[in-house]
Amino acid sequence: MEKRKVEVCFTPENIQYFDISNSHIVVVDVLRATSAICAAFANGAKAVIPVPSIDEARKAKENGYIVAAERDGVTLSFADFGNSPFNFTAERIGGREVAYSTTNGTRAIIEASKGLSVVVASFINISAVANWEMATGHGDVLVLCAGWKGKFCLEDTLFAGALAEQLLANEIFETQCDGTQAALQLWGNAKGNIKSYLELVAQRHRLKRLGLDDVLDYCFTPDSSSVVPVLREGKLVAAKPQL
Amino acid sequence: MEKRKVEVCFTPENIQYFDISNSHIVVVDVLRATSAICAAFANGAKAVIPVPSIDEARKAKENGYIVAAERDGVTLSFADFGNSPFNFTAERIGGREVAYSTTNGTRAIIEASKGLSVVVASFINISAVANWEMATGHGDVLVLCAGWKGKFCLEDTLFAGALAEQLLANEIFETQCDGTQAALQLWGNAKGNIKSYLELVAQRHRLKRLGLDDVLDYCFTPDSSSVVPVLREGKLVAAKPQL
Repeated sequence: MEKRKVEVCFTPENIQYFDISNSHIVVVDVLRATSAICAAFANGAKAVIPVPSIDEARKAKENGYIVAAERDGVTLSFADFGNSPFNFTAERIGGREVAYSTTNGTRAIIEASKGLSVVVASFINISAVANWEMATGHGDVLVLCAGWKGKFCLEDTLFAGALAEQLLANEIFETQCDGTQAALQLWGNAKGNIKSYLELVAQRHRLKRLGLDDVLDYCFTPDSSSVVPVLREGKLVAAKPQL
Repeated sequence: MEKRKVEVCFTPENIQYFDISNSHIVVVDVLRATSAICAAFANGAKAVIPVPSIDEARKAKENGYIVAAERDGVTLSFADFGNSPFNFTAERIGGREVAYSTTNGTRAIIEASKGLSVVVASFINISAVANWEMATGHGDVLVLCAGWKGKFCLEDTLFAGALAEQLLANEIFETQCDGTQAALQLWGNAKGNIKSYLELVAQRHRLKRLGLDDVLDYCFTPDSSSVVPVLREGKLVAAKPQL
């Protein structure tokens, strides 16, 4: 039987160079968009609606949605809050639909929608995502990193390596992708000492300068949630178990 | 004094996201375009003219140039030869101007031309390139990897890490670039055992399938040449020493 392939794409701007017609797409933006979306579902959000532009976020607010929106780490003035995972409390978003727009993360989710399926991942639901992708039983898996404004970023690549490691431990998966090989190695270098490794990460320093780096422990602690957010008709909703 | 920055861009398609107005660009396509260009200069070529399209390569041939041109590792029918470094012998190209078109490499050279300067690098002239960049005395340095059709590739990234290591050993350089951090680490993983490491590299297997992997030893042996090819008015020529 032909093995299922694992690929990693480092920025949404490069996904056009991958054939994703037979691929399930895993979108990740560890610091902080997809960690926040996973936190929202862990806290009972009904749906998260990715909106790419500031204008659409503003319209969502006018239409009565609760709106999370930031650019470069800073909450937009009309939004209810920005994209710290700590904002998405059960009190605020439990049972509600949240419109969400961020610098890199929502763009990645929208780019991914040409694949077989789109799930949103972070370290907080990494094993649930790995199990979900294994349970789909067919198709390749491409990890789409949000990156930083068209550039490679380390933290999303570490996640890609960690997920690829889980998938490739199962012999139904293989990889022939240099990006995956790089991600596996970088994750191998990092995993024993994440905290000191993060000193190398540019986004860690951007967040520190903005006083927003309180999320690091939360964002790099695996498996606090078992919910897999999946894209259905333009909305992220909690996936039903496939097993 | 402000330090000079080292950055790495993994594909020509992503250079638009970097501000290169104050950057010297080092273009690399280890397997095999820039290794071949460096071989051409080591063997006395007068100039190498990068031509992006097959049509332009054909016109160059009609105009009497010696033409090296390939796509996906296969020599084009009208060309004198493809891009194995072993084709660029002193007998064939000594004292001559060569028009050169490849899958990824010439695109990268042309994209790079918005920077302060463009040099062509490979392991065979790596220390000469590092010394040349140090001697420029100003401006940042961006390593532009040719990649593979818009995707990240490992072999160019290893070169980027090796060059960054040489530059950053000098305290006039620093980096705040995640791509550079990744390249440094991947080079650190590879450098003690390049031969076995290359088994991970997709392009190594593409070349093997085409019977073109005889170039590996040559392309990964450092410093067989001290010539730095630099772009001047659309032509690559041997740089004069800057010291």
